[in-house]
Amino acid sequence: MVPRYSRPEMVALWSPETKYRIWFEIEAHATSALAELGIVPKEAAAIVWEKGAAATFDVARIDAIERETKHDVIAFLTHLAEIVGPEARFVHQGMTSSDVLDTTLAVQLARASDILLADLDALLAALERRAHEHKLTPTIGRSHGIHAEPTTFGVKLAQAHAEFARCRARLVAARAEIATCAISGAVGTFANIDPRVEEYVAQRMGLSPEPVSTQVIPRDRHAMFFATLAVIASSIERLATEIRHLQRTEVLEAEEFFSEGQKGSSAMPHKRNPVLTENLTGLARMVRAYCVPAMENVALWHERDISHSSVERMIGPDATITLDFALARLTGVVDKLLIYPERMQANLDRLGGLIHSQRVLLALTQKGVSREDAYRLVQRNAMPVWRGEGDFLTLLKADAEVSAKLDATELESLFDLGYHFKHVDTIFRRVFGEG
Amino acid sequence: MVPRYSRPEMVALWSPETKYRIWFEIEAHATSALAELGIVPKEAAAIVWEKGAAATFDVARIDAIERETKHDVIAFLTHLAEIVGPEARFVHQGMTSSDVLDTTLAVQLARASDILLADLDALLAALERRAHEHKLTPTIGRSHGIHAEPTTFGVKLAQAHAEFARCRARLVAARAEIATCAISGAVGTFANIDPRVEEYVAQRMGLSPEPVSTQVIPRDRHAMFFATLAVIASSIERLATEIRHLQRTEVLEAEEFFSEGQKGSSAMPHKRNPVLTENLTGLARMVRAYCVPAMENVALWHERDISHSSVERMIGPDATITLDFALARLTGVVDKLLIYPERMQANLDRLGGLIHSQRVLLALTQKGVSREDAYRLVQRNAMPVWRGEGDFLTLLKADAEVSAKLDATELESLFDLGYHFKHVDTIFRRVFGEG
Amino acid sequence: MVPRYSRPEMVALWSPETKYRIWFEIEAHATSALAELGIVPKEAAAIVWEKGAAATFDVARIDAIERETKHDVIAFLTHLAEIVGPEARFVHQGMTSSDVLDTTLAVQLARASDILLADLDALLAALERRAHEHKLTPTIGRSHGIHAEPTTFGVKLAQAHAEFARCRARLVAARAEIATCAISGAVGTFANIDPRVEEYVAQRMGLSPEPVSTQVIPRDRHAMFFATLAVIASSIERLATEIRHLQRTEVLEAEEFFSEGQKGSSAMPHKRNPVLTENLTGLARMVRAYCVPAMENVALWHERDISHSSVERMIGPDATITLDFALARLTGVVDKLLIYPERMQANLDRLGGLIHSQRVLLALTQKGVSREDAYRLVQRNAMPVWRGEGDFLTLLKADAEVSAKLDATELESLFDLGYHFKHVDTIFRRVFGEG
Amino acid sequence: MVPRYSRPEMVALWSPETKYRIWFEIEAHATSALAELGIVPKEAAAIVWEKGAAATFDVARIDAIERETKHDVIAFLTHLAEIVGPEARFVHQGMTSSDVLDTTLAVQLARASDILLADLDALLAALERRAHEHKLTPTIGRSHGIHAEPTTFGVKLAQAHAEFARCRARLVAARAEIATCAISGAVGTFANIDPRVEEYVAQRMGLSPEPVSTQVIPRDRHAMFFATLAVIASSIERLATEIRHLQRTEVLEAEEFFSEGQKGSSAMPHKRNPVLTENLTGLARMVRAYCVPAMENVALWHERDISHSSVERMIGPDATITLDFALARLTGVVDKLLIYPERMQANLDRLGGLIHSQRVLLALTQKGVSREDAYRLVQRNAMPVWRGEGDFLTLLKADAEVSAKLDATELESLFDLGYHFKHVDTIFRRVFGEG
Repeated sequence: MVPRYSRPEMVALWSPETKYRIWFEIEAHATSALAELGIVPKEAAAIVWEKGAAATFDVARIDAIERETKHDVIAFLTHLAEIVGPEARFVHQGMTSSDVLDTTLAVQLARASDILLADLDALLAALERRAHEHKLTPTIGRSHGIHAEPTTFGVKLAQAHAEFARCRARLVAARAEIATCAISGAVGTFANIDPRVEEYVAQRMGLSPEPVSTQVIPRDRHAMFFATLAVIASSIERLATEIRHLQRTEVLEAEEFFSEGQKGSSAMPHKRNPVLTENLTGLARMVRAYCVPAMENVALWHERDISHSSVERMIGPDATITLDFALARLTGVVDKLLIYPERMQANLDRLGGLIHSQRVLLALTQKGVSREDAYRLVQRNAMPVWRGEGDFLTLLKADAEVSAKLDATELESLFDLGYHFKHVDTIFRRVFGEG
Repeated sequence: MVPRYSRPEMVALWSPETKYRIWFEIEAHATSALAELGIVPKEAAAIVWEKGAAATFDVARIDAIERETKHDVIAFLTHLAEIVGPEARFVHQGMTSSDVLDTTLAVQLARASDILLADLDALLAALERRAHEHKLTPTIGRSHGIHAEPTTFGVKLAQAHAEFARCRARLVAARAEIATCAISGAVGTFANIDPRVEEYVAQRMGLSPEPVSTQVIPRDRHAMFFATLAVIASSIERLATEIRHLQRTEVLEAEEFFSEGQKGSSAMPHKRNPVLTENLTGLARMVRAYCVPAMENVALWHERDISHSSVERMIGPDATITLDFALARLTGVVDKLLIYPERMQANLDRLGGLIHSQRVLLALTQKGVSREDAYRLVQRNAMPVWRGEGDFLTLLKADAEVSAKLDATELESLFDLGYHFKHVDTIFRRVFGEG
Repeated sequence: MVPRYSRPEMVALWSPETKYRIWFEIEAHATSALAELGIVPKEAAAIVWEKGAAATFDVARIDAIERETKHDVIAFLTHLAEIVGPEARFVHQGMTSSDVLDTTLAVQLARASDILLADLDALLAALERRAHEHKLTPTIGRSHGIHAEPTTFGVKLAQAHAEFARCRARLVAARAEIATCAISGAVGTFANIDPRVEEYVAQRMGLSPEPVSTQVIPRDRHAMFFATLAVIASSIERLATEIRHLQRTEVLEAEEFFSEGQKGSSAMPHKRNPVLTENLTGLARMVRAYCVPAMENVALWHERDISHSSVERMIGPDATITLDFALARLTGVVDKLLIYPERMQANLDRLGGLIHSQRVLLALTQKGVSREDAYRLVQRNAMPVWRGEGDFLTLLKADAEVSAKLDATELESLFDLGYHFKHVDTIFRRVFGEG
Repeated sequence: MVPRYSRPEMVALWSPETKYRIWFEIEAHATSALAELGIVPKEAAAIVWEKGAAATFDVARIDAIERETKHDVIAFLTHLAEIVGPEARFVHQGMTSSDVLDTTLAVQLARASDILLADLDALLAALERRAHEHKLTPTIGRSHGIHAEPTTFGVKLAQAHAEFARCRARLVAARAEIATCAISGAVGTFANIDPRVEEYVAQRMGLSPEPVSTQVIPRDRHAMFFATLAVIASSIERLATEIRHLQRTEVLEAEEFFSEGQKGSSAMPHKRNPVLTENLTGLARMVRAYCVPAMENVALWHERDISHSSVERMIGPDATITLDFALARLTGVVDKLLIYPERMQANLDRLGGLIHSQRVLLALTQKGVSREDAYRLVQRNAMPVWRGEGDFLTLLKADAEVSAKLDATELESLFDLGYHFKHVDTIFRRVFGEG
């Protein structure tokens, strides 16, 4: 976790304070469940709740105990006993440490998902607003970095919206994957604890009971979760890369917002660099990388080993904090993006009309020219334009074989931009629904 | 693709013959749609279907044309024109190569998913059968590779069943992700083709229309698909690793089936090695690795670049063929796994009763001993047993502080295996439903 | 392995024929060594060499035997016995299968390295030639995709040369890593074979003896090898990305060679796309991905498990074949790259002189202006130019505060390109040595 | 960076204080070089050194300035000017931010390498000591987790020593890769700074001049560095996995040291878990994962983009801190490992002599039995032993076909452990040199 790439709400979720508060809630709910089942005294559960809810857990004190016992949950329970008093002996009955640890991780990842879902909602809103703003702003569509045919800047943003809407749906599914509760004892047999305790705690903590746990919640769930974050990061990289391209000196169709006090370079004061989207490109690499160890964590030995733990202590915070930051940063970039329609038009006009070659090709075939011949006719007029030797429309008009099939008026109509935008409404309806 | 790790049905899906057949179907359906819209003659569409359906596409011929044109779709269309005749000029009207290529990949990945889903069904069936067979076969549960508490072999297999049932659900979702159709033209604006053509073809090919394509179907879909395969591979690795552990000389609770003619080692004829599950461990690494380039493919430049193509030519077949093979191999391993209940019992008995220490601990606290004291009492009797100096039950009976709280009968009842299995029905009900 | 991304020499290296030939050589050399030590009859070794050298190993026959024995080396030895006759019983004495398999892999990877080193030499030669050709061709240097200061196209290529020269040195080191021989028996103790056999075979096969093998050569060596290929692939991606950028419509400073018959797009005949370098970008992703399973292969269990084998059957050929193809393709691209100096000059001139802002800044500070003030002066003249409102030199001359420090002549001299190229000789000397 | 997996010396290397101190040294050395070249006054350089060396850089103050300027190097230079006074204007002359940043990263990675090399030396020393201690302690060698032939525990550790000695050599090479200095200006042309400044600073900072930088040091160097760390991590995983296996309940040939106050489990007080080596397994996954984004960083755009920066802010500290911690932890584990020779002997004896089957096979073939027949004879006596029905030596003696070739004395001699250890001296000499 690098502070400059972090936001406070997500950081707080991974603090020791939050963790111990969740531990307490799980232990206290389990004690309540045991009390309901008549296994521990109801008064004991009440005292645990009363004293625990009022207490602030002393992180330094717990650390000190852990240094001695080398066991974090025992350290916490010892501290809890200091707070609660003798009734503390009814806490953690029949449970094992992983019941607490794994359920806590589930709570943290579910809450992290909620923050990320809100991030995605904000991003989607920004994309939708800017897409409508530029629904019909003409811009050149590029394949292979080469001018292809016209599209609109709104369609570009609609594409990004559709992509992040998919990311949102994936994250909802990933959240459901990891939002499970395990209170099943040392190897998951419920030998010392009634399955109803697990159901009780799950319900109170907003989780589902894990169908079969084996001391731990199975790690294929977490692998799927982090893989989903990795895919979202890849979509961030895509939009960031698009903006970086658009901000190139030679293209300059859009720019990241540039505030007054900001200096682009210590050496070149005129420079306005797409540093935010470059940064997002790097952050995406990190979030993507975290999915590999998450997948390697799946094959724990037998009912569990603890190799996953150090991985998750790192990627739990690192992946969610970084992705939260990246989504928020990207939303800011989209929201304030400087968009230059006149530059888009200038670039559109740069190729002397060559971008309409496909239409000409089609029109020729519709006039009965074979595809092979039409291709040849178009290409022989396109190549001089490509070399800067003339304008495509003029050359076509002057080509006898072409003009035998398409008269001047027909040819001119093929150079109309509106032709390309007639289905933008359809696309917008698909992405944003009616309206 | 390594032949020894391949099965014919999946290999055939990725053959040039299959590919060209799908290309033809897409082109022909598109021509039909254009005919319905009155853009091309209905007779032309009929002839395309008639001649194309009857034809065998000549892969060598198409390759020869491609060597000249350096463009695969043009090569195919040229060959199609040789088959269809002059009506071929109505084929591919307003389409771009990627309309064909990307939709074809969608069809192939959807069909690959169907094969993989059938593989998973077979694996789930094998797991369910063996789980019920050993529902109450006692075996030691292990955490950290160390004996923990008893469980049953059926519960182990139920866990695997639950995990692969999740994998199945994920694959269904992943299939939906990639089963989309794009017939949207050079930059996805439908400039030269009516969106109804896309809807028509999608419906005929069993796909959904892609809401916004940009010459290509967006690659976040494919990233999610291959990430899902990678998670499934990780679950394969988990079960394979479990079996490898169980087959260790010192454990030997289960073995891969060993046929008569098979030789374990050129040097050590007594050896029976878990070579299938070791092989699966390696194959899982490969399928997992393929998700990284799939994620790197997402950030294509602008409306598309073609960097994804070489990646997909490799991982499309490699990931699906390898996973298909691995699932089938794992199913065979599970189906024929040699399971040794008497060895499981012998291992259970190995620790002189120490595996019941948690129950003793709990019983002591229920008798009013503080958790700290109970822990101390259990540990001081456990340590000699661990060193091989006596039997846990005997030592506990002889410990005055313990026997003051728990008499001999009570202690003996704490060593009953049935205690651990009382909720196996619950677990099975969660995994397999009623029954 | 995808045929279109393969070259025959490297493919042949991974054929069964080559593999069995190497197996034979290792077995035969080992038999010779045993004969020298007086363990087997010298005549037996002679007959093995004589009959084996003359024979063609029948791949189909070996496959058939393997289907029965499920063991590849036993299958080969059985077939060898069919060829050699009764003396075959002196072959493989005291050896284990992995002695043959691992040493063979070492030979294959060493030979693959030799091919790759030759590929790198060809690439370095092409880069050196083109670098000298354009040693002083002015072009704009770009950071963040934004114009920075002038450089030369030769310096760009010199950088690539220096990078691939490092790659070459790394590959030499990686080759040494994997070029080791293990003939050490079932767990590496030489129980049944004299270490001198290993030394003998190593020397004959051009390898070093592995200091400690444990049935297998340790896989950290292979991990390092494939990691090195992955880094080389990343450098390929860098140069490919550079060329893709240069070929963009708006930049167009260089283009991949475009042959006459080639069609850029089925739809847009004017398009000339950087498809080779886009392809290289994708291939680089694949070679990079293969290093992860190679690293996961390191932690084999105890003296060995066989999980690495399926991985290496895939990545051994796939990584080396793909990298060989990619290096050769990149060499072709560099060799025939169309370079447009006049476009480079036009782009250099595009920013109205802003690229000289750093020099102006420096000159002002050298005249005693504080860095802060100089920055402010430069920036206030740069911003209008950036907005297309004037020429930088003209504005600076008209700025009273600037002209108080730098007169017109001084200002003009700051806009001289030669100023930037005065150390190109130094850079070339560092990269190419004297000249 | 997770505090519990961190050691102070490496953490301090990545602190802002250390970073700004290195920045200062680079800037001050560059100023000295400029003074030597007569470009800035010698007195100015002297004052910079004098005031800067005495100062403590105020991290909070620099942060505050950066919040305004959004540029870290400008923020530092502004703060430096506050300390140094007017002579500060001679600092950073002709340099660009990356000159400072990249050279600083080189210094940090070189120093990190020195710490890691010392870690490796400590690990190698521990391995050497324990290897000699158990040079002739018999233990079973295992392939596929199955008993193979005897080896010694010292040979196991010698293998690990040889592997980490290779890791050390790789790290020395990786350190040389990244220990370069770039002071070459905005696009690496030395337009505004003499190459001799770079040479001067490089020499003073213990680095080599970068042959061609392009504002940045090329990232293939860093990719190779982090790939090397990833390979070292994989070797850590291998040794950690070995120890985890040895500590399994059924094997129990070695254990991590277990201190008095430590509790293995909150629920099962008898448990002694290999938690340190499991932890190392997880940490290895993380260090390995960091190499993928490092490789993705190579393909920066043109002369540089800044996408690598966020990656390196994370993996620079994370990879080196984690690997430092892991190496030190592993050294502690090896140093204090509890080794149980009597358990190793008991496991050796477990298979009723089957581990000698290879020797029997060999002896039969040396008596003239064909390999096929010998295999059959050995296997038919091995199988009953494997099923627990008898002792291998007894059965062989009773087998008429066997005893016709090998008499009782000969058979007994084949069961001698010393036979397997006769080349241990050779192995140790290869690994540890004379002794």
